[in-house]
Amino acid sequence: MDLYGEHGFDQTTVAEIATRAGLTERTFFRHFADKREVLFGGAGALTGIFADGVAGAPASASPIDAVAAALDVFSTMLEGRREGARQRQAIIDAHPDLRERELIKLASLAAIVADALRRRGVGDVAASLTAEAGIAVLKVAFARWVAEQPQTQTFPEIIRQSLDELKAAVTAGT
Amino acid sequence: MDLYGEHGFDQTTVAEIATRAGLTERTFFRHFADKREVLFGGAGALTGIFADGVAGAPASASPIDAVAAALDVFSTMLEGRREGARQRQAIIDAHPDLRERELIKLASLAAIVADALRRRGVGDVAASLTAEAGIAVLKVAFARWVAEQPQTQTFPEIIRQSLDELKAAVTAGT
Repeated sequence: MDLYGEHGFDQTTVAEIATRAGLTERTFFRHFADKREVLFGGAGALTGIFADGVAGAPASASPIDAVAAALDVFSTMLEGRREGARQRQAIIDAHPDLRERELIKLASLAAIVADALRRRGVGDVAASLTAEAGIAVLKVAFARWVAEQPQTQTFPEIIRQSLDELKAAVTAGT
Repeated sequence: MDLYGEHGFDQTTVAEIATRAGLTERTFFRHFADKREVLFGGAGALTGIFADGVAGAPASASPIDAVAAALDVFSTMLEGRREGARQRQAIIDAHPDLRERELIKLASLAAIVADALRRRGVGDVAASLTAEAGIAVLKVAFARWVAEQPQTQTFPEIIRQSLDELKAAVTAGT
């Protein structure tokens, strides 16, 4: 990640990344499919956080509140790592193929959240819609959090505010 | 599209598509970047439908109702073309690279809807969230519409029902 910031993503080779990390190229490829995966290497952990966060919400929590609980755990975890998150996002935003990969990871995450909601007894359609809405909040709140200069709100605060804005926007009108 | 159904997407060449359409390969490539684009060729029109649908909603319509108006126009247009939509989706679902391209098109569509909402005076964050929620409804409702065997509801009906389910899911609880 530091190398991407120093030399640019395109100019950084797998050999350089492996050397910096004290690995051989071979070991590198045992951990990551390619150099893009370094940016998304936390996706497995992310999946667990969301699946556990939704499953672990109180039985009385509504579907959106179960998702909010998972978003709270995740955003609290990330709060201290804003600069790294900002750097990573700048690299992704500059590369269309990385943006594609990010969209795929977010779509997979939505599917995992929807499954976790179904296991709580939420109906099929409501589970998919709540999960997609939750991931939309994550996307929008994350972008706000890394863009804010100087930082005036924590990531969990921005998440909660975005959830409230979603509720207000979706229920306004008919 | 018919050729993809007859021979499978992988086995169909650009030459075959061009011949069936009465075009030279050169003319084909003037219209489509590659054979994948045939499946997404309507994306430009889709963009217009959503931008115009949101812009054309009554001034009094709330953000989500402006998006609902666009979804209604789109789903009404597609209603008579369910079999074609189903075939197209089956091809996309079977090819990871096509699914990626679809996710990108949907993300672009969400950005266009958000821009159209901002031009109606909707705040930045609310516009992004409402747009993402609307695209989530589109995705989930579309999947329901093409999957239903036999068909008992029209696409516009499924869209309206999914919007209601989203509102209920998002507002339940706190």
